[in-house]
Amino acid sequence: MDKNFEHALLYDFYGALLTEKQRRIYEEVKFGDLSLSEASETFGISRQGIHDTLRRVEAALEAYEAKLGLVRQFRLIKDKAEQIRLICGVLEEDTRHREDLARILQLTKEIEEL
Amino acid sequence: MDKNFEHALLYDFYGALLTEKQRRIYEEVKFGDLSLSEASETFGISRQGIHDTLRRVEAALEAYEAKLGLVRQFRLIKDKAEQIRLICGVLEEDTRHREDLARILQLTKEIEEL
Repeated sequence: MDKNFEHALLYDFYGALLTEKQRRIYEEVKFGDLSLSEASETFGISRQGIHDTLRRVEAALEAYEAKLGLVRQFRLIKDKAEQIRLICGVLEEDTRHREDLARILQLTKEIEEL
Repeated sequence: MDKNFEHALLYDFYGALLTEKQRRIYEEVKFGDLSLSEASETFGISRQGIHDTLRRVEAALEAYEAKLGLVRQFRLIKDKAEQIRLICGVLEEDTRHREDLARILQLTKEIEEL
């Protein structure tokens, strides 16, 4: 998987565990498209300092995933919810239980969107 | 909810983020039924030190939940999975789709057991 996408996903799960400053720098550069030089000016630290912060943040995010495995676990849940949704799609051709199936589908979507 | 049960649940989710020593003390006293005095002897720190460690661990677990909300989120998922399971139980009286429903039930149980 693309490293940037992977880190964005990890950030989504574990960002709250970083310091406020780490979050601001990481967000501005990674999601706000600030260059290292611009971030250096904005935060009043060297380009190298910005670079080091990004690496430290990514190492921290990876360490949290290694310990908690939330991204892996949520992927498993979403995968199973998707399988339920696909089975419901097949069952829906039978009209007798349309309402019950609609309810299962709704719950499944809610799981997938968590 | 019972505070001990709540903390056991939080420990299950966030224990990996504690230090090795915090984990050992917390497990021995809370799950291994060691008294504060016995833990004090075992770990070579004062009874008060054991007591403080337990309080610090519980504060840390609560702080992780406040930041990440995993227990809350997993409860939501399990609640939805349980609802799917109950609907399937009703649908199962219809024998035409027994295999599909059995598969949905299996996936739902897997979600609930994660």
